[in-house]
Amino acid sequence: MTLARSTKLTIVGAGSVGSSLAYAALIRGSAREVVLYDIDTAKAEAEVLDLAHGTPFTGASRITGGSDIELVADSDVVVITAGAKQQPGQTRLELAGVNVRILEAMLPQLVALAPHAVFILVTNPCDVLTAVAERITDLPPGRIFSSGTVLDSARLRWLVAEAAQVAPQSVHALIVGEHGDSEFPLWSSATIGQTPLGAWIDDAGRVLFPRERLETLTHDVVNAAYKIILGKGATNYAIGLSGARIVEAVLQDERSILPVSSVLRGYRGIDGVALSVPSIVGAGGVQRVLDISLDAREEELLQRSAEALRSSIALF
Amino acid sequence: MTLARSTKLTIVGAGSVGSSLAYAALIRGSAREVVLYDIDTAKAEAEVLDLAHGTPFTGASRITGGSDIELVADSDVVVITAGAKQQPGQTRLELAGVNVRILEAMLPQLVALAPHAVFILVTNPCDVLTAVAERITDLPPGRIFSSGTVLDSARLRWLVAEAAQVAPQSVHALIVGEHGDSEFPLWSSATIGQTPLGAWIDDAGRVLFPRERLETLTHDVVNAAYKIILGKGATNYAIGLSGARIVEAVLQDERSILPVSSVLRGYRGIDGVALSVPSIVGAGGVQRVLDISLDAREEELLQRSAEALRSSIALF
Amino acid sequence: MTLARSTKLTIVGAGSVGSSLAYAALIRGSAREVVLYDIDTAKAEAEVLDLAHGTPFTGASRITGGSDIELVADSDVVVITAGAKQQPGQTRLELAGVNVRILEAMLPQLVALAPHAVFILVTNPCDVLTAVAERITDLPPGRIFSSGTVLDSARLRWLVAEAAQVAPQSVHALIVGEHGDSEFPLWSSATIGQTPLGAWIDDAGRVLFPRERLETLTHDVVNAAYKIILGKGATNYAIGLSGARIVEAVLQDERSILPVSSVLRGYRGIDGVALSVPSIVGAGGVQRVLDISLDAREEELLQRSAEALRSSIALF
Amino acid sequence: MTLARSTKLTIVGAGSVGSSLAYAALIRGSAREVVLYDIDTAKAEAEVLDLAHGTPFTGASRITGGSDIELVADSDVVVITAGAKQQPGQTRLELAGVNVRILEAMLPQLVALAPHAVFILVTNPCDVLTAVAERITDLPPGRIFSSGTVLDSARLRWLVAEAAQVAPQSVHALIVGEHGDSEFPLWSSATIGQTPLGAWIDDAGRVLFPRERLETLTHDVVNAAYKIILGKGATNYAIGLSGARIVEAVLQDERSILPVSSVLRGYRGIDGVALSVPSIVGAGGVQRVLDISLDAREEELLQRSAEALRSSIALF
Repeated sequence: MTLARSTKLTIVGAGSVGSSLAYAALIRGSAREVVLYDIDTAKAEAEVLDLAHGTPFTGASRITGGSDIELVADSDVVVITAGAKQQPGQTRLELAGVNVRILEAMLPQLVALAPHAVFILVTNPCDVLTAVAERITDLPPGRIFSSGTVLDSARLRWLVAEAAQVAPQSVHALIVGEHGDSEFPLWSSATIGQTPLGAWIDDAGRVLFPRERLETLTHDVVNAAYKIILGKGATNYAIGLSGARIVEAVLQDERSILPVSSVLRGYRGIDGVALSVPSIVGAGGVQRVLDISLDAREEELLQRSAEALRSSIALF
Repeated sequence: MTLARSTKLTIVGAGSVGSSLAYAALIRGSAREVVLYDIDTAKAEAEVLDLAHGTPFTGASRITGGSDIELVADSDVVVITAGAKQQPGQTRLELAGVNVRILEAMLPQLVALAPHAVFILVTNPCDVLTAVAERITDLPPGRIFSSGTVLDSARLRWLVAEAAQVAPQSVHALIVGEHGDSEFPLWSSATIGQTPLGAWIDDAGRVLFPRERLETLTHDVVNAAYKIILGKGATNYAIGLSGARIVEAVLQDERSILPVSSVLRGYRGIDGVALSVPSIVGAGGVQRVLDISLDAREEELLQRSAEALRSSIALF
Repeated sequence: MTLARSTKLTIVGAGSVGSSLAYAALIRGSAREVVLYDIDTAKAEAEVLDLAHGTPFTGASRITGGSDIELVADSDVVVITAGAKQQPGQTRLELAGVNVRILEAMLPQLVALAPHAVFILVTNPCDVLTAVAERITDLPPGRIFSSGTVLDSARLRWLVAEAAQVAPQSVHALIVGEHGDSEFPLWSSATIGQTPLGAWIDDAGRVLFPRERLETLTHDVVNAAYKIILGKGATNYAIGLSGARIVEAVLQDERSILPVSSVLRGYRGIDGVALSVPSIVGAGGVQRVLDISLDAREEELLQRSAEALRSSIALF
Repeated sequence: MTLARSTKLTIVGAGSVGSSLAYAALIRGSAREVVLYDIDTAKAEAEVLDLAHGTPFTGASRITGGSDIELVADSDVVVITAGAKQQPGQTRLELAGVNVRILEAMLPQLVALAPHAVFILVTNPCDVLTAVAERITDLPPGRIFSSGTVLDSARLRWLVAEAAQVAPQSVHALIVGEHGDSEFPLWSSATIGQTPLGAWIDDAGRVLFPRERLETLTHDVVNAAYKIILGKGATNYAIGLSGARIVEAVLQDERSILPVSSVLRGYRGIDGVALSVPSIVGAGGVQRVLDISLDAREEELLQRSAEALRSSIALF
């Protein structure tokens, strides 16, 4: 007899990102079973215990975990947060090299244990790793992708909402491209409610977002992580919520539009590179990558972002 | 000592709309105290009892009610769903006349009992009644408004989402104008994600929403209520959720953008008429009515909708 | 490729109970797919449309429905609310006869279309129908059961909470036996927090629930439905929430303890009769019926309730 | 004009407990405004930014914060998580001394800025600090209390639920006394559903919780924190959820029964000592401390716990 199966989410990596993601997922009920897996047994078990003790206050979600890779078996979604962090003096490319080797060691095992899972990469540099991971795993298109600029877009929406004094849920704006320095906002399609950002006026009747303001906002989004890392050593809460949000879109087959990063095939001339563009996310992962209307400047930025990633990927 | 006050929502009218709104509000936790008031004692008490019996399964919200007008005292929000329904052979204007008289009798009492409340009209014809109600009550601008086309816009978003096979939350589209036959969608600013509706293509690469399709959608939204009334005699569930949604925006001071209907003052030449345009809704009610960009056709439809309402209001 | 399957709930019967249950399920996100099936096409389609129009304000749940029985295919849970209502002059047994015949006609089809589903009966008299339904379907134990006294227990908890002025979630009390006149509360194990009901004192230091008060409470619970029906013609909201709550326990494999009614086998000498006792509800339905400690009076009431049901069932 | 006020929660201390509590509160919507205050400007601002970036994915809650004490003004609830942590070689009493001095410096300012707030202490040793804090502030009874054994009780409920394989929400059990080594479970009133723990049998018909098992469970709860600290250096997630849960009970005036720690006055002979017993928590904080039925052993343990705390408090 085939009972209705519970949804199973495995989070690989019990660091601050992985455990915050688990916390958000438990509170929101993103999945019925949450597994927190890490090679560090003591750390994984301690995080699981701390998380589990809170579950009498949440819904039906349940958490288990540890360092036994078999825990991953039959997951519906696997989110990978494990990996090295950038060390002082280490270049981003050196970091990429380290994390590529970690993925090469780990991914075949994960795919063997959870052959039907959707794989979501959160580890950085997430775009480079997504392209490499697709090559390693040979999963069908869309079954492996990264959180990309979902977080960056949330940062932009929050900044715009604060400036305009409206609910962030009423701000519709996207950051696309690399999750990193070459990312950029799609100002031409950003709106508050249905009002184009450029047409939004404040209570005093002044245009609230002139060109200079947009540049400041872009700068603030791109540098948000640095500012947070300076103050607290890492970012974990917003990426945790972003990850939980993406997991829900997959497990509930929401067909929500999210700027995740998957390997593009002939997208505006971009091929074999993973970067974030708005995508329909549902059962099976990325169901469709959406074409977007870009002005000339945005088109140029997209190609430049793709080029930056292409040269990185070429090294692996 | 002034303790943190609980939020209090009064729903006037225990018919199918009022009680569905109360049900949605209890399940969603829209307010801490929900009062269901109706002049029909037996009906109000029966609905309250049926609703209360479900509260062990919901959050902290509590329901009371009955036919004692004093129950309304110190409400933070009062939603008015009471009123006559259109009878066979009765014109909309005759209906308006009946409901205007009900408001004239009831509103002064409600305002006296809940002098700081935000008043939301759900009774139809809601735009006409809003203009009349503002005159009766002399409340500050924004403190009395109607649910307007919040429901109609939800209907449109659902229809578009079904057609495009995406989450309705990813569809951004508005119906504006009269909550009634002269309402119309703002196609020029409707998007799925950030993609303009006209540019959306389906999996097969075809434009999904050509002009004819838009006309069908408009027709379906405008006639949705008639179709439902034919099949079940009334509409109550979606308007209940719409009402709960607006109440939350007020009580949580969300500053969300919703197409509610408030009396316009010099809005694109429209003055003294209530109709729906996107508005910032938060503490105190409508905090600001937003200007919108319209193409020539939409501008004409807006003025026509205003004109239709102006002539109705003139009769009261 | 086997993708993570969405959860599918079918509600049979688009009357006020079925549609309220669908409304609660959509707002709470009890299942990803909700199907509302009814032989009355116009009614079913109208309810579905009204419910669907509210979904832009809720989570990922989606509603469809109509009169095509094929809609039921592959449901994970089927809730049956369809059936005749008691007519003036009709005895409960006559009503049972009518609804037994409806089940006999409908159940084999439903089981054929959804062979792995859990079936939950809400139609009355639900205990008699559960025993008959098990015989008709030959489903494994626990796969078919009724909402039983889940609603009645909620009514009791609400009444006690109101009297003691505490949150209803802090009241732990059960009604067991027939969902009907012979049901009774398990006073001996009822608590507020961890305090036995009999030991609860009010602010003034008086015992709040002396024996007479308990009798009044019992009377109020048993007669709650009659009072509501007198005032509004039917009960629908609390039973809708009760149904949604049970569905969640099954679909999330919660293993929650709920007083549902399943056919008992050698339970305190009761055999082949369905009545409500606390049961572990999770994947597959009733996973285990729990033994309860009863005082002599409660034991007598349970046997009397079983006897009343036994003689009814014998007639079918 | 007095608009419906938003609820305002201030969390003092942006360490891992304070920021996890803020994260849980934002996701759950525990309060409309969340303020995270810490004397370390960079740390507080970084945590606020990281938390704020996630709010486009949550409800209407908003987060601000920093090191300006004026941010606390007019809070409805102030949760204090700030304080020194136990250093290697430092006794608990030495730690208490340090944290008492921190409270002495900080509390008068906080009370002056938020004179109507409910104050909840999470900093340890929380019972000693509660007694000292009440003396410092001279707030009305119940307006200052600590999270006490709310977390410990959740740990117990989770452990029992795992053993019995039921939902933790179906386990009703309390840890009372000191939040620390002398705490103990009220086994005599612990139930699963309505079944006393001692009467619970497993699927194989064996008593699942014999005396030895209860001792193991007690040991596991009392030592849970040590185990987690060993593995991850601190506990933060479950205490964060416990804190959010208590805040909701206050802000929603839930009148929920929670084992928080407030200064007892003539409670079973205990006077002037704060320790956890089941209490009604709602508007204004602890509305009432509930008497509990204890067996002889439990009575002895309670007095011993009180004695341990009495001697600690005497030193300050």
